[in-house]
Amino acid sequence: MFEFETQRAAMTEEIEELVLRKQFAQLRDLLIPLEAADIGLLIEHLPKESMPLVFRLLPKEQAAEVFVELDSDVQELLIQGFSNTELKEVLDELYLDDAVDIVEEMPANVVKRILKHSDPEMRKSINEILKYPEDSAGSIMTTEFVDLKQLMTVGDAIKRIRRTGPDKETINVCYVIDRNRHLLGLVTIRTLLLAEEDAVIRDIMETNVVSVSTLDDQEYAARSLSKYDFLALPVVDTENRLVGIVTVDDAMDVLQEEVTEDIEKMAAILPSDKPYLKTSAFTLFKARISWLLLLMISATFTGQIISHFESALAVVTILTAYIPMLMDTGGNAGSQSAVTVIRSISLGEVGFSDMPRVVFKEFRVGLLCGVALAAANFVKLLLVDRMLFGNVSVTPWVAMVVCFTLVFTVFTSKLVGCMLPLIAKKAGFDPAVMASPLITTIVDATSLLIYFQFAYLILGI
Amino acid sequence: MFEFETQRAAMTEEIEELVLRKQFAQLRDLLIPLEAADIGLLIEHLPKESMPLVFRLLPKEQAAEVFVELDSDVQELLIQGFSNTELKEVLDELYLDDAVDIVEEMPANVVKRILKHSDPEMRKSINEILKYPEDSAGSIMTTEFVDLKQLMTVGDAIKRIRRTGPDKETINVCYVIDRNRHLLGLVTIRTLLLAEEDAVIRDIMETNVVSVSTLDDQEYAARSLSKYDFLALPVVDTENRLVGIVTVDDAMDVLQEEVTEDIEKMAAILPSDKPYLKTSAFTLFKARISWLLLLMISATFTGQIISHFESALAVVTILTAYIPMLMDTGGNAGSQSAVTVIRSISLGEVGFSDMPRVVFKEFRVGLLCGVALAAANFVKLLLVDRMLFGNVSVTPWVAMVVCFTLVFTVFTSKLVGCMLPLIAKKAGFDPAVMASPLITTIVDATSLLIYFQFAYLILGI
Repeated sequence: MFEFETQRAAMTEEIEELVLRKQFAQLRDLLIPLEAADIGLLIEHLPKESMPLVFRLLPKEQAAEVFVELDSDVQELLIQGFSNTELKEVLDELYLDDAVDIVEEMPANVVKRILKHSDPEMRKSINEILKYPEDSAGSIMTTEFVDLKQLMTVGDAIKRIRRTGPDKETINVCYVIDRNRHLLGLVTIRTLLLAEEDAVIRDIMETNVVSVSTLDDQEYAARSLSKYDFLALPVVDTENRLVGIVTVDDAMDVLQEEVTEDIEKMAAILPSDKPYLKTSAFTLFKARISWLLLLMISATFTGQIISHFESALAVVTILTAYIPMLMDTGGNAGSQSAVTVIRSISLGEVGFSDMPRVVFKEFRVGLLCGVALAAANFVKLLLVDRMLFGNVSVTPWVAMVVCFTLVFTVFTSKLVGCMLPLIAKKAGFDPAVMASPLITTIVDATSLLIYFQFAYLILGI
Repeated sequence: MFEFETQRAAMTEEIEELVLRKQFAQLRDLLIPLEAADIGLLIEHLPKESMPLVFRLLPKEQAAEVFVELDSDVQELLIQGFSNTELKEVLDELYLDDAVDIVEEMPANVVKRILKHSDPEMRKSINEILKYPEDSAGSIMTTEFVDLKQLMTVGDAIKRIRRTGPDKETINVCYVIDRNRHLLGLVTIRTLLLAEEDAVIRDIMETNVVSVSTLDDQEYAARSLSKYDFLALPVVDTENRLVGIVTVDDAMDVLQEEVTEDIEKMAAILPSDKPYLKTSAFTLFKARISWLLLLMISATFTGQIISHFESALAVVTILTAYIPMLMDTGGNAGSQSAVTVIRSISLGEVGFSDMPRVVFKEFRVGLLCGVALAAANFVKLLLVDRMLFGNVSVTPWVAMVVCFTLVFTVFTSKLVGCMLPLIAKKAGFDPAVMASPLITTIVDATSLLIYFQFAYLILGI
């Protein structure tokens, strides 16, 4: 197969060379057979001054496809260089939802220019979609779908598709509406093709149509589409009037974006929607510093616990040596549970009502993990630390303190780790922010309190 | 819209009640309008003894659709109860790739029974697909696609689609092959419908076809499909002969699974492919214990560093109190970078060749974060710890030790965090295992060494 990624560097060089030598016909022949997404990547890796030149070599239709794939800063650069005619040519070839995506990223003066050169219908539609809140189903839908009437025959429907199809985002699913645009049903192109020509749409359409509302979250729309294996999902307004559709390719992108957001939140980063390499160091700093500060301040409580037990530590100094191990193990055990539950919540597999089952499961897993770790550690303390390294202060009593702490720390970490995301979800917060870093901070303090409690009970300090 | 999730509990109860009262006609009317995925969820939440009964109420075709959506243990339970005729009925309605998925999860005796009652052609295809390695493109493809010849007219092609379409997984993309099944091009159903009836396929087909090979990783196939916004992706053998296609719904599932795997690995869990609530406590234990053990053992090195500097700590005991804060902040800073880079690698945005750019970026972010945190901490140490709480052992010199350590720890954590995943990728390991827990362990030791170094330089201990 065509391994594009590995060839990109070589191709970029070749393109730069052809530009230098002004061998434009050859350059054009090189680009045209490629997929739009790949041409986009190649253009993005060119020096800025060559971008418009290479872009202009593409045939009109392909140019629009490539334009959609480019990063917004490259799009802006190209638009700035376009003549009005060129801009209009690209805009005329764009699908509505792509045009909206572009408009959303551009500065005001570019938006004005784009809207001025769009045809009136598109301008109206762009303005309508821009009204929907960010991250809503309405904001990612397209209004370019095929609509049919229920009394049409299959023959009529196919004629209509042939006539209006070229401007539609997809013809694979067609929606049946009444005169007030209420959604009545859907027919796939497959059903149409396999039906008799004189069959009536009403008799062959599916009437149990899953739809989302314009204000539903885009992630919800994408998950529904994925769950039901649809190619498109209708979007209706509050009166069940069909206003647009979300297509599968956009749903895939939404799911990937949402996953990236979740992962960022789990790592205590404020989510952004720009690719890493395009984000400035200062923006990255701003996205990371707030959680770091907050967690740093909470970690000082752990320090205060240690200060509080300073005198106990002074008596049996060896106890200090096991603090990092206990805190790390507790943190790791807790974030395993937290991350598992957070992901299950995202996938819709687990909800607040499953709390008892989840807690019971983590209760058992926590016990198993705690006991296994404690056993391994007991052997290690006595055989390695005491016998091998000859550290006589590691008495069996000290080993007992460490190992009992381990069992209880792992156990409580697992319970805290599995409960916090569920409680956050119920309380309307994002479960993802309950992941590792926050759990670590909580677990650190808990593990120390458990540690000093056992030291008091067993060693009497 | 139809909020299925929130109604599931109520519907399950209603179904159980209808089963008890033997009102099967009413139960059937309740189920039939629902989507297969939703009926599947409802059946899974019923008591085991009611499952076969409710399943049998569904019309043949819908029954097969629902069957595909069920968890493998429920599928097995149903198959065990099927008569041979029932089994054959369900199998006849299945698409090939779904049949393969089911066979892969069943115990040997059930597989035998399934293969015995599949029609010969399907049996042959199932056996062929089972030969491909797990997680390969071949293992998720279906062989039920529409193939066309290049000299057909559009009219011929549409006739062929009408004849063979009902058994195909998708008719939205049709593939053009020669007599040796080499892949020559593709036409979408849209192109066919919008073309003249006497146009020849050769003249309207796209010839630059992106394909994957049977042995390519399934994630690679899914990412290609997503990148190019395809509805299906052809899978070819080593001689470019078309053997199957991967459809967009399966690609979406693969991407979600791969993300879950990545997230699990980042949280130091061995990935599994069963939903959380279906996994036994012991299986979860096994998936989690190995990393916990390994990380626990590595964390003891951190303890040894503390032991080594015991005498220094005994002189200025207040230093112990800031150890958790330094270790946690280092760990958090490092995992922010690691997780960002890991996700960018997964999305194909960053590769090993970007190392210099990544390092330079993290270099600056690390400095900014380190200095900001140190400044905040300096104020906090002197104003809160010393003035407010009257802890006189927090001298400006101690504060300097802590804050210099903070700058250097955050800085090195960021660099380690961004470099390890890239190096892992280059070395052929999975970058995801380089995330938080492993970074934390490395960073703990580093931060302590830095801490004691500054204590020596500034406090002379």
